[in-house]
Amino acid sequence: MKLSDLENNIKQKKSFLCLGLDTDIEKIPKHLLKLENPVYQFNKSLIDRLHKKIIAVKINTAFYEARGSNGWKDLENTIDYLNSYYPELFTIADAKRADIGNTSNMYAKAFFEKMNFDSVTVSPYMGHDSVKEFLKYENKYVILLALTSNKGAADFQIHNDNYLHVLKESKRWNNSKKIMYVVGATKTDFFRKIRSIVPKSFLLIPGVGSQGGNFEDTVKASTSTTNNIIINISRAIIYASSTTDYLDKAEKALDFYNNKLIK
Amino acid sequence: MKLSDLENNIKQKKSFLCLGLDTDIEKIPKHLLKLENPVYQFNKSLIDRLHKKIIAVKINTAFYEARGSNGWKDLENTIDYLNSYYPELFTIADAKRADIGNTSNMYAKAFFEKMNFDSVTVSPYMGHDSVKEFLKYENKYVILLALTSNKGAADFQIHNDNYLHVLKESKRWNNSKKIMYVVGATKTDFFRKIRSIVPKSFLLIPGVGSQGGNFEDTVKASTSTTNNIIINISRAIIYASSTTDYLDKAEKALDFYNNKLIK
Repeated sequence: MKLSDLENNIKQKKSFLCLGLDTDIEKIPKHLLKLENPVYQFNKSLIDRLHKKIIAVKINTAFYEARGSNGWKDLENTIDYLNSYYPELFTIADAKRADIGNTSNMYAKAFFEKMNFDSVTVSPYMGHDSVKEFLKYENKYVILLALTSNKGAADFQIHNDNYLHVLKESKRWNNSKKIMYVVGATKTDFFRKIRSIVPKSFLLIPGVGSQGGNFEDTVKASTSTTNNIIINISRAIIYASSTTDYLDKAEKALDFYNNKLIK
Repeated sequence: MKLSDLENNIKQKKSFLCLGLDTDIEKIPKHLLKLENPVYQFNKSLIDRLHKKIIAVKINTAFYEARGSNGWKDLENTIDYLNSYYPELFTIADAKRADIGNTSNMYAKAFFEKMNFDSVTVSPYMGHDSVKEFLKYENKYVILLALTSNKGAADFQIHNDNYLHVLKESKRWNNSKKIMYVVGATKTDFFRKIRSIVPKSFLLIPGVGSQGGNFEDTVKASTSTTNNIIINISRAIIYASSTTDYLDKAEKALDFYNNKLIK
């Protein structure tokens, strides 16, 4: 996807919201378990219901890997469905991968070629050569972990201002215009510093909802001159109800956040 | 596996070597491609031939994910085969995962429950709560990235001595005795500093062979009072030949390294 398409979608839909499909088979409504592929069917139903009100879909690989190759098949079916029916939605493989170049190249193949995601989240710890394999692809994006939403962000990211070094260093890389950054909604005080370094980069913001980040504060602090944020909400939407009314409740939860939109 | 079993194996076999199954379907001998599951059959044949001369097997997930759910099935079949026939081999899922606690828990399920690996490589960037879910399991181990073998290690690991901070910080965590560390063989000058902080911890050392690390220097620099290292070799063994003599050539390459053993 071109960046301009993502930006236009945000303007037209008046939404920054990304649907996070962290789908745990033990948490989906029980009546779906009698279907052949309950996780895929759950994902499909949420996408069908919510696609007009979101601009992106993020799929966290952990929840699929926990169920082995069957789970991986659900992941493949979900991204195939998105690419076939809703190509206007920006897709994110939340995989937090990275390895030496030779191996990162294989991860890039997995997410950009085999499954055709628009973007993948990447951990910066192994440095430039572990990230650059992902940056070779046209119209594909790296979403680099900068400052995550969890408590442990203090241990190595905030320590020594490493998250700022990640921003500064990665800006110097080839194709750095294709880098977006993960910045947690639970860290609103840090947005000013971050925006002083990457004013125009897209930020992927998790941590709203179940993780406690405040939506209005986050939007206010994180947007800069353009509408360059993607706010992910997972559990607060997909598990809004555990019974047959889960789609109604999911849409209601989504509306709650979209209606708070300032711009 | 208990740590004492791994230590005993190293003593008895007089080997520190780990077979790295970075199996790329495009690089295995062509005659195997007519088999039903060529990647699995290639892995199986290498394990059968080399199991007496190695103490561990490391499977890098990237090479399997690149082929989607079929590749993931080969990964599952390989670890199942190891657990069924060679439970004495220490198994490593080289996955370099980590996420917020709720999600890391799913990765731990994938690698420790669903597939029953003995250990998994974990990226430290997201901090303690992203690692601790893996440390809950008895007789299972986290192999934390400290100083990797690639050039990009300079960008964030060596910068500000972050790799030393990772060692110091992680030592304070609960169950830290179950933490091992990745230290690249291409970084032998750093072993003295590393051993001053974690004298007894196991180090997983990649980068010997195709990546250019010298074997004797590495063994000398990295062992401390005990035989607490695991040296991984992947490409230099598994791709020692691209034709029907690949097992003979793989064994010859393995012998070359084992015969250099100093202790």
